[in-house]
Amino acid sequence: MKLDCAVITAAGRDQRDLPLQSLVDRDGQSRSALAILLREVQEAGIRRVGLIGHPGAEQRYLEAAAEFQDLIEFIPQAEANGYGQALYLARDFVGSSHFLHLVGDHLYVSDTSQGCARQLVDLAKTEDCSVSAVQSTREHQLGLYGAVGGQKVTGRERLYKVEVVREKPTPTLAEQELVVPGLRVAHYLCFFGMHVLSPGIMECLERELADREQPLSLSTALNHLVQQEQVLAAELAGSRHNIGMDYGLFYAQLALGLRGVHREEFLGGIVNLLAAVPGGRG
Amino acid sequence: MKLDCAVITAAGRDQRDLPLQSLVDRDGQSRSALAILLREVQEAGIRRVGLIGHPGAEQRYLEAAAEFQDLIEFIPQAEANGYGQALYLARDFVGSSHFLHLVGDHLYVSDTSQGCARQLVDLAKTEDCSVSAVQSTREHQLGLYGAVGGQKVTGRERLYKVEVVREKPTPTLAEQELVVPGLRVAHYLCFFGMHVLSPGIMECLERELADREQPLSLSTALNHLVQQEQVLAAELAGSRHNIGMDYGLFYAQLALGLRGVHREEFLGGIVNLLAAVPGGRG
Repeated sequence: MKLDCAVITAAGRDQRDLPLQSLVDRDGQSRSALAILLREVQEAGIRRVGLIGHPGAEQRYLEAAAEFQDLIEFIPQAEANGYGQALYLARDFVGSSHFLHLVGDHLYVSDTSQGCARQLVDLAKTEDCSVSAVQSTREHQLGLYGAVGGQKVTGRERLYKVEVVREKPTPTLAEQELVVPGLRVAHYLCFFGMHVLSPGIMECLERELADREQPLSLSTALNHLVQQEQVLAAELAGSRHNIGMDYGLFYAQLALGLRGVHREEFLGGIVNLLAAVPGGRG
Repeated sequence: MKLDCAVITAAGRDQRDLPLQSLVDRDGQSRSALAILLREVQEAGIRRVGLIGHPGAEQRYLEAAAEFQDLIEFIPQAEANGYGQALYLARDFVGSSHFLHLVGDHLYVSDTSQGCARQLVDLAKTEDCSVSAVQSTREHQLGLYGAVGGQKVTGRERLYKVEVVREKPTPTLAEQELVVPGLRVAHYLCFFGMHVLSPGIMECLERELADREQPLSLSTALNHLVQQEQVLAAELAGSRHNIGMDYGLFYAQLALGLRGVHREEFLGGIVNLLAAVPGGRG
């Protein structure tokens, strides 16, 4: 499988400034969230990145990712009218190849020396099919994510064959359609915000978009893709952090700092601030 | 003393994006660092804020502080050529009044229900003179700050009469000129990044600027001001966080979150991430 391009979506109305937020990477360098994503993607062997954003954001994004500027082709989305619509704008950019897809409002923190994107790309190449990264997620958070149902791949750890995909399912729907044998009770496989997708996803998006004006989720299109070709789901060794949520940037920085080159100093700073809180709240 | 205007400097070359960084305030609202500063200033009774920034940053700053837009008069500094020069650009804006001054790359976290700016403004009004907020700081950090020498005001806690001001002194110079009786050994009164200044500071800046082309520090001008009028220094009940330093945003968010409305959830999230670190590093 040829896999040398990626698509990052960052056009959501509330998300425009997220790629510009500054964090300290695991190697101790201050970088924008976008630059941290691009570095992860580059380390996964990707050579071209289609970055989908609001036209007004192009200059800011290119400045925030100056060190990776050569990778980027900016793809403008004038109206923030849905995730599916945004991804479909990259159809010419990806052409007839599989591609890596990341959402621009997440950061990924690997528990190994290999980045999450590298883990996913290697797996997709080995399995020669689309693979969605997923994370076992408690029922009460289902409303935040797309989720998949399916079966464990025999003899493999943390790898699943996807049979159905639902966007932000209710707990009732999840219990009917998305229970995956082997997971903890009331846990489901929710999207991690990172996928390797076959070019077939663009046809699924096109078909769905022809029928509707409302925003289209990736889940709806993926649910079609799994009817026509093999799609796997994999739990990676790492965690995802939605930096668009309250405290999301903070928790992403905490996860990075705890695994970073300044770990001891970083923890020392945390302890100092915990100790400096005035006693009690009453 | 009339004290209804403030000046925030945010034109430093490396600091341009700092005011746009997103944090969750103590009340649980996501706000830009600039909006958090402006809120603090507004709660101190300030009605007009001169915001000194690079001309290219005006639009971004106004967007990042949309809820406080009516407070702001943007004062462009085309060339980032020094902190003293930047502050001097506000001379017409402040006119003949005392004014509050904050640096745009810091956040302030109060240990009481009154913000740090409110504490400082109230004190300046009571004492009817310029007051610099200071923080007792260990010797090895002297190279990061301006520092003052002086004497404790008799019968008052945490209040000092300033006799000399030095910018980023060496430990040797500090030991000769800046030892303040009553502080812990090897500790000095370093700037907190927040001052109430008399209009006299503008004359001091003007005099110094006439003689030089190099960047001018506020410390140099303040050192003149203390020769001609009373200047106090006060330790406030709170902490300052330089968000331009590595992990500075993280620590500012930690200090805010620990004192915020979501304190329990916030701590729970920290504990979860600490527990999720893969064992050992070796």
